[in-house]
Amino acid sequence: MKIGFIGLGHMGSAMAMNLLKAGHELTVYNRTPGKAEALISQGARAAANVADACRGEAVITMLADDAAVAGVVLGSEGVIAHLHGGGARAGIHISMSTISVALSEKLAAAHAKAGQGFVAAPVFGRPEAAAAAKLFIVAAGQPDAVGACEPIFQALGQRTFHISDKPHAANLVKLSGNFLLASLIEALGEAMALVGKAGIDRHEYLDLLTSTLFPAPVYKMYGGLIADAHFEPPAFAAPLGFKDIRLTLAAAEGLRVPMPLASLLHDRFVRLLAQGGDKQDWSGIGQLAAQDAGENLFAHQASQHA
Amino acid sequence: MKIGFIGLGHMGSAMAMNLLKAGHELTVYNRTPGKAEALISQGARAAANVADACRGEAVITMLADDAAVAGVVLGSEGVIAHLHGGGARAGIHISMSTISVALSEKLAAAHAKAGQGFVAAPVFGRPEAAAAAKLFIVAAGQPDAVGACEPIFQALGQRTFHISDKPHAANLVKLSGNFLLASLIEALGEAMALVGKAGIDRHEYLDLLTSTLFPAPVYKMYGGLIADAHFEPPAFAAPLGFKDIRLTLAAAEGLRVPMPLASLLHDRFVRLLAQGGDKQDWSGIGQLAAQDAGENLFAHQASQHA
Amino acid sequence: MKIGFIGLGHMGSAMAMNLLKAGHELTVYNRTPGKAEALISQGARAAANVADACRGEAVITMLADDAAVAGVVLGSEGVIAHLHGGGARAGIHISMSTISVALSEKLAAAHAKAGQGFVAAPVFGRPEAAAAAKLFIVAAGQPDAVGACEPIFQALGQRTFHISDKPHAANLVKLSGNFLLASLIEALGEAMALVGKAGIDRHEYLDLLTSTLFPAPVYKMYGGLIADAHFEPPAFAAPLGFKDIRLTLAAAEGLRVPMPLASLLHDRFVRLLAQGGDKQDWSGIGQLAAQDAGENLFAHQASQHA
Amino acid sequence: MKIGFIGLGHMGSAMAMNLLKAGHELTVYNRTPGKAEALISQGARAAANVADACRGEAVITMLADDAAVAGVVLGSEGVIAHLHGGGARAGIHISMSTISVALSEKLAAAHAKAGQGFVAAPVFGRPEAAAAAKLFIVAAGQPDAVGACEPIFQALGQRTFHISDKPHAANLVKLSGNFLLASLIEALGEAMALVGKAGIDRHEYLDLLTSTLFPAPVYKMYGGLIADAHFEPPAFAAPLGFKDIRLTLAAAEGLRVPMPLASLLHDRFVRLLAQGGDKQDWSGIGQLAAQDAGENLFAHQASQHA
Repeated sequence: MKIGFIGLGHMGSAMAMNLLKAGHELTVYNRTPGKAEALISQGARAAANVADACRGEAVITMLADDAAVAGVVLGSEGVIAHLHGGGARAGIHISMSTISVALSEKLAAAHAKAGQGFVAAPVFGRPEAAAAAKLFIVAAGQPDAVGACEPIFQALGQRTFHISDKPHAANLVKLSGNFLLASLIEALGEAMALVGKAGIDRHEYLDLLTSTLFPAPVYKMYGGLIADAHFEPPAFAAPLGFKDIRLTLAAAEGLRVPMPLASLLHDRFVRLLAQGGDKQDWSGIGQLAAQDAGENLFAHQASQHA
Repeated sequence: MKIGFIGLGHMGSAMAMNLLKAGHELTVYNRTPGKAEALISQGARAAANVADACRGEAVITMLADDAAVAGVVLGSEGVIAHLHGGGARAGIHISMSTISVALSEKLAAAHAKAGQGFVAAPVFGRPEAAAAAKLFIVAAGQPDAVGACEPIFQALGQRTFHISDKPHAANLVKLSGNFLLASLIEALGEAMALVGKAGIDRHEYLDLLTSTLFPAPVYKMYGGLIADAHFEPPAFAAPLGFKDIRLTLAAAEGLRVPMPLASLLHDRFVRLLAQGGDKQDWSGIGQLAAQDAGENLFAHQASQHA
Repeated sequence: MKIGFIGLGHMGSAMAMNLLKAGHELTVYNRTPGKAEALISQGARAAANVADACRGEAVITMLADDAAVAGVVLGSEGVIAHLHGGGARAGIHISMSTISVALSEKLAAAHAKAGQGFVAAPVFGRPEAAAAAKLFIVAAGQPDAVGACEPIFQALGQRTFHISDKPHAANLVKLSGNFLLASLIEALGEAMALVGKAGIDRHEYLDLLTSTLFPAPVYKMYGGLIADAHFEPPAFAAPLGFKDIRLTLAAAEGLRVPMPLASLLHDRFVRLLAQGGDKQDWSGIGQLAAQDAGENLFAHQASQHA
Repeated sequence: MKIGFIGLGHMGSAMAMNLLKAGHELTVYNRTPGKAEALISQGARAAANVADACRGEAVITMLADDAAVAGVVLGSEGVIAHLHGGGARAGIHISMSTISVALSEKLAAAHAKAGQGFVAAPVFGRPEAAAAAKLFIVAAGQPDAVGACEPIFQALGQRTFHISDKPHAANLVKLSGNFLLASLIEALGEAMALVGKAGIDRHEYLDLLTSTLFPAPVYKMYGGLIADAHFEPPAFAAPLGFKDIRLTLAAAEGLRVPMPLASLLHDRFVRLLAQGGDKQDWSGIGQLAAQDAGENLFAHQASQHA
């Protein structure tokens, strides 16, 4: 397929490379041009601007947040103004960023008005999974539009879930997934503060947990970070985690669903950022319970690794 | 080994049967005598009273709560008064119930004073796992005492973790495990309330979660109960779940570890019980977020199963 | 003084009337024209539009929320475009609505750029206090601008607090005051659920509280509403209370101040609204603890008033 | 009346002095004998033991906690064993300590069995109020028993509330009052963290609050402590405040009333104590929000008082 790709960060550039490998004809665009070089050397075409990336059957956006997506999609220079509209050959915008439910609804309405296709397809997986084409893709949109994207999804991930005909449902599911992960981090943080203060070795404790009730890799990964009090450099930075909890609460507010655990996580992130945790991994909230208990995790870390 | 076994509920009778199968010489005792019959028909001896169950190398208690354990172990008719004390032949009390850290500390001190061995060895696993000898055993106590129990643990479980020399550490780990499970239930309850009110199918959502980030069986099991709003009959009743969260908070209070998520769970259980949930599974707290959101899960359930 | 007044709801019309009584020359504007009639009959002039209300030394806005204020102040037909700017005779915009800190900052910057004065002066007090010129006014802005407003404040309230040179500080203080009131409602709601379920008469309990530790009228008023479970019609509707807690949390987020009690209140309001409480007074959150405890306050109410 | 008085701490000795001044015949007892001297010099008789303090018409206990009260009242040397029982001359035990609902119920049953009167009469007020005979007394018990205590209450306080026939109701009301105070401290702590970080002067802010919506002295007092970050020496120590929140939650648990705000306070106290706050006033929890926001209140305090 002839595809445009906008947003070449850690995730985006790995995904774009897999589209090239799968034989798609790729035009790439990034605000900072240098990021496109590796892809161009593998056969991608560099777009001069957003409009130039919208000439194919589909254009993918993979950007950091609502503001970046809105900046690229809306406006006279944006995706909606330049994507092929209407008829059998209507272009499709595939929004793969983690954005708010409200923006997704707004984009869906604007694309529909312009006679264009719109599919929300956020992903679960870190950059390594993106590079290995092992992402999980949560797709939502009209069945024909989602169907047309199948070759793209196959090149990017290990499995695609078509969760709803309404694009914003995919964004909600993605946000809820990050809420579940942050809940797990908080729970592990409190449990480790408890057993740690009782003198139990955190790593042995984690080994026990992940060998028994909680064999999921996310427990092993986040539990390990908390046990080590090892939060820098971030794999997923605290401000991004905070953003997703805020978007979860905003969606919940819109739907009138009280989520006290999400509120607790919200407060944890505000506190982590207030205390200078901007450059920590979002699992840094997992150290706050120990801090409240009067434990100095970083001292612990130092002695462990000395 | 020559072993006494006190407490023949769902868990205890399955465990005792596995000890018989492994060739141990078993004397069993239960307050309600009828429960011993199946075991006696397989070769177990019936003890007339607690003292009578204390004549072997080890005696196991597997009872419902602190009060039951204290009732059987302390006092002039209890385990401590009648178990072999001192020397090479000192008897060992293996406490496998989920009890408080405080009671475990008290028992450890009393056994030490009496020159007896004491091992805390609570388990992870439901009655099916007990019957299949697939329990996970969290053991803590003096290394020689724990070592002497190895043949017993091998007959009961798939793996034993010797977590500490101090018996109460095992009880704390067990409680923290139930705290982590209840946290998972609450998180899933809130997430499902959110996506459910947005019109996303709960079961498809759960399939997505357990196929991607959360492959652990506990997510599948508890997520399924919440998606179905199917909480009766209980596999683990709400009052027992509440008890464990209370004991977690009591231990955390003793160690001065603030656990806000545990406090949230505490309030959820108080509410579930206030609203008549005594006979529900403890995963019944997973419906409260949806209830707060104005959703009638039971109506949903009815339509699902009609 | 020659004053424009925009926004003639319950609060605004009472305040405008007091300005007339004090001898000020008043031009009034409301989107729904009928509301100006009583004031016109007392000597006010009707403005044809917003611009027409901006010809005096000062213009006051007293509107429902951020959207209403932004709609009236910004844009080519708005206050900023038409208020006298610059020089000794620079007009002053006095914003008396309860708005967000962010909008207040935005307005302050825009007025400064236009060479106009800007004073934020939200008030504490219900419509009865407004009618009696007994409001408390929280004013913030440049000292000369606030000083120029003194004759206006004297006509409207019993006391003015000049809390800061930065206008948004007044909005923050106003929001924090509503946060404190909502906290008091929640605390009373939980305490009354507790003593009420124990069989203690709620009204006797409230009499005890307000005769001893809590003589403030707000305890008497909100405690009475909760004791009676009497939440309709609203004096201050739940959606407005919710809005203020949201704005408090938004300001706290901006300043990176975690406020767990504000988060609890947030969840209470989401729940009240999810359950149909839109037309209740904001003190309706004070019944949720009793509801969680399985008490039917409305049945109680019925029997009290039967 | 002929009265025994047990417990001569700050509160008890001030109360006992007022009974002497009112002309009652007083026998006093304290575990540490030295504390009785001032009272003896004013005419009180020193009791050799608890039994010796039980020979009058009534005996008052004013002790620190459940353990102290149980130690003095139960057992073969205790109040119940030695107070006049049965008939017209049955002695009355007036329990004025802040104790648990559960212990109060236990004492009521034991006194009833012994044919003795039992009145629970905890008080609101600090030692200064006790010295000035300005306490508020919350009394509960059988009307004739409470009536017989009237001369005593008149000597000790400014007003007595007979809240229920069941003694434990008074203890519940007392605990709920301390819950309301702690809620107020937390709310003020969060509000001051918010406005303080925005650069608003805490003392001016407090003056505004207490001049407008919150004229109650408790706001002035606790707000002042928080604004000053001045928590030592304690007027009411954090461990005692924590105890009362724990007892509130225990009573709420027994009645099955979920109190999320009480749980939040519980976690605040655990944290304050974990961080070394044992010797602070209980209002020390009012600094935790500022601490979470990255503010160093003690530095602030130092600069204020330098």
